[in-house]
Amino acid sequence: MKQKVLNIIGIVTLGVILSFCAPNQTGEMNPHVVLTAQGVSSIKKELGRLPLLDKSVELLKAETEGDMELGIQVPVPKDPAGGYTHNRHKQNYTTMYGAGVLWQLTGEERYAEFVKNMLLKYAEMYPTLGDHPVNKSYAPGRIFWQQLNDAVWLVYTSQAYDCIKNYLTVDDRQVIESQLLIPYADFLSIKSTHVFNRVHNHGVWAAAAVGMVGYAMDEDELVQRALYGVKTESYDGKPQGFYAQLDLLFSPDGYYTEGPYYQRYALLPYMLFSQAIENNNPEYKIFEYRNQILKKAVLATLQMTNTDGKFFPFNDALKYMSYNAPELVNAVDIVYNAFPESKELLSIVKEQGEVVISPAGLKVAQDIAKGQAKPFQWLSMELRDGADGMQGAVGILRGNPYKNAPCVTMKYASQGMGHGHYDRLGIMLYDNGNEILSDYGAARYVNVVYKNGGRYLPENSSWAKQTVAHNTLVMDQMSQFGGDLKKAEKTAAQRWFFNAGNDHISIMSAKENHAYGSAKAQRTVALIKDNKHNSSSFVIDVFRIEDDEKHSYDLPFYYKGQLLYTNADYLSYTDQRGTMGKDFGYQHLWKEAEGKPSVENFQSVWYNNGRFYTMTSEAMPDDAIFFTRIGANDPDFSLRNEPGFMFRRENSAATCFVNVIEIHGNKNFNTEVVESQQGSVKSVHTLLNNQDYTIIEIKTVKTSSIVLAIANAKSDPSEEHSTNIAGKQYSWKGPFFLFEN
Amino acid sequence: MKQKVLNIIGIVTLGVILSFCAPNQTGEMNPHVVLTAQGVSSIKKELGRLPLLDKSVELLKAETEGDMELGIQVPVPKDPAGGYTHNRHKQNYTTMYGAGVLWQLTGEERYAEFVKNMLLKYAEMYPTLGDHPVNKSYAPGRIFWQQLNDAVWLVYTSQAYDCIKNYLTVDDRQVIESQLLIPYADFLSIKSTHVFNRVHNHGVWAAAAVGMVGYAMDEDELVQRALYGVKTESYDGKPQGFYAQLDLLFSPDGYYTEGPYYQRYALLPYMLFSQAIENNNPEYKIFEYRNQILKKAVLATLQMTNTDGKFFPFNDALKYMSYNAPELVNAVDIVYNAFPESKELLSIVKEQGEVVISPAGLKVAQDIAKGQAKPFQWLSMELRDGADGMQGAVGILRGNPYKNAPCVTMKYASQGMGHGHYDRLGIMLYDNGNEILSDYGAARYVNVVYKNGGRYLPENSSWAKQTVAHNTLVMDQMSQFGGDLKKAEKTAAQRWFFNAGNDHISIMSAKENHAYGSAKAQRTVALIKDNKHNSSSFVIDVFRIEDDEKHSYDLPFYYKGQLLYTNADYLSYTDQRGTMGKDFGYQHLWKEAEGKPSVENFQSVWYNNGRFYTMTSEAMPDDAIFFTRIGANDPDFSLRNEPGFMFRRENSAATCFVNVIEIHGNKNFNTEVVESQQGSVKSVHTLLNNQDYTIIEIKTVKTSSIVLAIANAKSDPSEEHSTNIAGKQYSWKGPFFLFEN
Repeated sequence: MKQKVLNIIGIVTLGVILSFCAPNQTGEMNPHVVLTAQGVSSIKKELGRLPLLDKSVELLKAETEGDMELGIQVPVPKDPAGGYTHNRHKQNYTTMYGAGVLWQLTGEERYAEFVKNMLLKYAEMYPTLGDHPVNKSYAPGRIFWQQLNDAVWLVYTSQAYDCIKNYLTVDDRQVIESQLLIPYADFLSIKSTHVFNRVHNHGVWAAAAVGMVGYAMDEDELVQRALYGVKTESYDGKPQGFYAQLDLLFSPDGYYTEGPYYQRYALLPYMLFSQAIENNNPEYKIFEYRNQILKKAVLATLQMTNTDGKFFPFNDALKYMSYNAPELVNAVDIVYNAFPESKELLSIVKEQGEVVISPAGLKVAQDIAKGQAKPFQWLSMELRDGADGMQGAVGILRGNPYKNAPCVTMKYASQGMGHGHYDRLGIMLYDNGNEILSDYGAARYVNVVYKNGGRYLPENSSWAKQTVAHNTLVMDQMSQFGGDLKKAEKTAAQRWFFNAGNDHISIMSAKENHAYGSAKAQRTVALIKDNKHNSSSFVIDVFRIEDDEKHSYDLPFYYKGQLLYTNADYLSYTDQRGTMGKDFGYQHLWKEAEGKPSVENFQSVWYNNGRFYTMTSEAMPDDAIFFTRIGANDPDFSLRNEPGFMFRRENSAATCFVNVIEIHGNKNFNTEVVESQQGSVKSVHTLLNNQDYTIIEIKTVKTSSIVLAIANAKSDPSEEHSTNIAGKQYSWKGPFFLFEN
Repeated sequence: MKQKVLNIIGIVTLGVILSFCAPNQTGEMNPHVVLTAQGVSSIKKELGRLPLLDKSVELLKAETEGDMELGIQVPVPKDPAGGYTHNRHKQNYTTMYGAGVLWQLTGEERYAEFVKNMLLKYAEMYPTLGDHPVNKSYAPGRIFWQQLNDAVWLVYTSQAYDCIKNYLTVDDRQVIESQLLIPYADFLSIKSTHVFNRVHNHGVWAAAAVGMVGYAMDEDELVQRALYGVKTESYDGKPQGFYAQLDLLFSPDGYYTEGPYYQRYALLPYMLFSQAIENNNPEYKIFEYRNQILKKAVLATLQMTNTDGKFFPFNDALKYMSYNAPELVNAVDIVYNAFPESKELLSIVKEQGEVVISPAGLKVAQDIAKGQAKPFQWLSMELRDGADGMQGAVGILRGNPYKNAPCVTMKYASQGMGHGHYDRLGIMLYDNGNEILSDYGAARYVNVVYKNGGRYLPENSSWAKQTVAHNTLVMDQMSQFGGDLKKAEKTAAQRWFFNAGNDHISIMSAKENHAYGSAKAQRTVALIKDNKHNSSSFVIDVFRIEDDEKHSYDLPFYYKGQLLYTNADYLSYTDQRGTMGKDFGYQHLWKEAEGKPSVENFQSVWYNNGRFYTMTSEAMPDDAIFFTRIGANDPDFSLRNEPGFMFRRENSAATCFVNVIEIHGNKNFNTEVVESQQGSVKSVHTLLNNQDYTIIEIKTVKTSSIVLAIANAKSDPSEEHSTNIAGKQYSWKGPFFLFEN
């Protein structure tokens, strides 16, 4: 694939170079990187007519002017992240970018003058700089402690330069290009090949920075360097540069292995550089590259959200982050502009409430004003992980494509690099726009200096990453892979089957054969809509594990809401309270109560924002249930004190945990009227569990029974299955079947 | 006052009776109780033109049709609240009312037929009924376990009858009136004078029921009985009936002593009956009565809200309840119709999203469609308690009149009857639309059968009502009045001064001389807007108490949000945890940590939805601070596990707690940018505290100092004060002064 693209590009390169205008003194050709001269002209015509565009211009003005009032401050780099010089240089590139754009829109010289003077200050300082004094990165920067930030600085500054280039004298350009832009681009590429050539988020930023400087300066060599990387003496023939990042960093479905919180951030340099490529080398057809991988990556990010727009918190993730983030504002505008048939993207922009001041943002604002927005549809889907799509996946099942529908996710992907959690086969449940079974996300308060300077907290490792912090099985009170990242990175979980093609039931199943030592685990989760009664949904969760040795198995569920009822026979620790354990995250769990089954099923009911959730769990006589709360061994009060259930089954080799969560009822908080607070599930029972089949039966007050059959050994859709249980024959085709009567 | 009204009414009564038409067979005069024939005609003309009206009609149709599908079910009364017969009879009156209105709007006979047949069923059953079998009320009903519900039934059913009267034959009317409506009205009045003549929410419902049946039947005697009560042999000359309820149940400012959660409910019969009076006896000028007390009561209810519409949870209150409740939909429509110059009410209706199908609702929908809505303004105000306005008050200070402004409340009123809490001088703080210092409200899950059948939980008494559950002082770890309701009801707190006339500072001060035995308490709370820097607000909270004996004083604050920082030197109970005490609510508090001051001020920072709150508290060397969490001794997991600080000062006779809460900064969750996370307060210090003056000084990084002087002995606005502290003279006029430099 890579070689083929190289050839195509090789052929067109000459033509491209010829079509470039030589840098010219009047600068009529600028801007042309992301904003374009033609775009500026169109935007000016539309000002005052498109509310979304006007609002966005006002926002940019307010932010830019506010900072410009402080004057030009270009301090000598000194501080780490969060410190004064770090924050100042970050703000400077934002302000230069804003002022550049505003110069184009308004023609007010003070904007151009501001950018010019600041760039000259940087050009004066840059040659004096060596490695940043905070020497803590594998790739120290010049203005910042790590090159990542330097690359971001250049991504924005190249656009600012592009915007005011036609305002500058030849001499000023010469100074800025020769003393700042060219050496900075060289520093990030030729002099830092270990970053520049690395298939990694940091490499993407560096490529975008170098390529966008190339476009801003009309210097094609830089663009080509960005696209194809730098050939070093030790070049091993592996793909490098931006095309390699496009080939390898996303899975074929557009999934980025760190999860959507970081995918959001990783997207931005892809999108900005690609827009620059499209503006200047449309013949590269960058948005078509690798079966439209850029579009897929953005759509995958948008799909990995609760219907309130917040990202699924796979791996290290701050749970407030949503598709309203500025990176997604850029990405959605740019992708819509490239694929204007995707009218559902306009609904996302309406929620975002702003557009980028660019031709893409203009197009979006125009089409929204024309009433072209269509509802965004949240779909059931499986997003494969790995460049080849063979590193497992994340699965998403939705009750319907609209706001507030129930949604269940399962992660059966690879580890997710250093930001990964030990959470194989972990699930989350959303309903009614709320988290119902939740994942903790990361233990971090970004940019809040009170909390470890805004960096990851120690509790991120001791709690958030641990297996027990997730809705998945813990064996012998130890995290998956013993909490060893290197072991975890070697393998991925394995998809077994995924089927969302049926109106009544959608279902996914995955296996994990490495995380639990020699034990083999398989989890199957189904979402069933009660079509007959149209009143409730069921989530059926079947977690089977088998090993030759006996183990202690814990299955925790972190529910969000108010516990209303449990049928467990329990002892509550009402005036003295201890923890659930000593390590692997257990030390962070308070033991609020412990109980045993009073009948053959545990049943618990909680409610969240007026809806009721009844969880019915098959129980063995010796099972224990714990009522837990996060927050022990947290001397700085950093953790959220959230409740959970934990089911414990000891002394078992092969076993199966079966849980059914029924979503039902409603409380109206205006009238206080409550409907259907009692669920319909009477019992849950495993009829059969072996290497070939797991068959479970749910009895409800409405139907005599629902039986879900899962094939564990053969997943072929055309495979015929048949088994006899207590004189009753169950026959079906494919990896699962739902029998109802 | 009462006598005067009686005379006026006496004179006009004859005329009124004469002007009544005799019941007539064609029934052209009906409806005329709340809905009117003229109103129906106007509404029909507007259908399809007013979105709010159309939506409301659709809502009514959906609800009514849904229930009509079940057919007519009039079961023999048997169950308590929440049981089948109880719920069925409640639903029946709603459905009859809806069907009656829809018959008027659509002319579809099935609606009228449904009401007729149901009324005939009730008429058949009613004569067979004695006291309700659940004999647990001081006033057992017929259909329901308590007469309150029967009165509500009749308030709705009288309107349903009114709507279909013109559809009924003379014979049907005779049966329904003689076997159901008249005896039911007699039961609620003549036969239950202990309820009917009582100045109480129950009496209001009974009066409204009897009066509205009177109007529906064109039977003025019933109307007069409702207005003036029933004269019994033991009549003591005290006012009775609806006019007495108008005179005595609300304070002159429209405050109802149980607090807004119950005020919302209490309002409905007032509003409906008053609308009926206005429709049929406009010469009574009911909306002008007692200086427009009905309007005042509705406005007071609306003002006692956070800017998200939720009521301040004074006393027993479910915290989700807001002005979107159906009672307020009725009340706002009716008051607007009577006072259409109150355009700000239309903004409330827009949030409510529906109108009542009545002439009032029509008027509201029309004026909203005309674009007449003005923003509702939340104002600083003091609402006096007691019929005479002499039972203390609740005070409300607001930073500005718009959404999300900071707001601090203090309750220095009477006990609030059986639903009252021991919370004298308790405060709440709101900001940015969120609770910041919160009151627990009631421990109850209304209509949730899992939780004590939906009734108040035991924890309502053991926790929610106790003093320690509120942001107010606890003396000797005991609740105010020793938790004795009778003692508490004898006295009210006392307003000292209230001043919201200044742009920069608003302030309120109150005294409580009975709740703490012989000790005298005074709390002063000021809200200061930082006009100079326009970036933050301060709440200054000064709680002084004095007694001859030494005591242990606890001042708890229940903060909402994530604790970020404290400067206390503390020990955290990280793996074993006990409670704060044994009784008076302390048994429900976990002790998470305890500390002592590291310097002369405690300082803690938390954040809530991206804003920062820094609390700086003057500390004595022997003070202790506790970090608490609600939820101990809660075996059923019924309580919300919310955090708090508690300041403890032991061995003190007279002392003063000074706390300053600074509201500042912002975290943007889209960009993760954090601004002004560090507050500006350096220290808080009492310069003087004696029976005459309390003078406190706040030093900030921005100003050299802010000094607040409070006069404790003389509150006259014209009084001149002067005192010398450490060689510095402080002179001012009035009960408080703010010195800034």
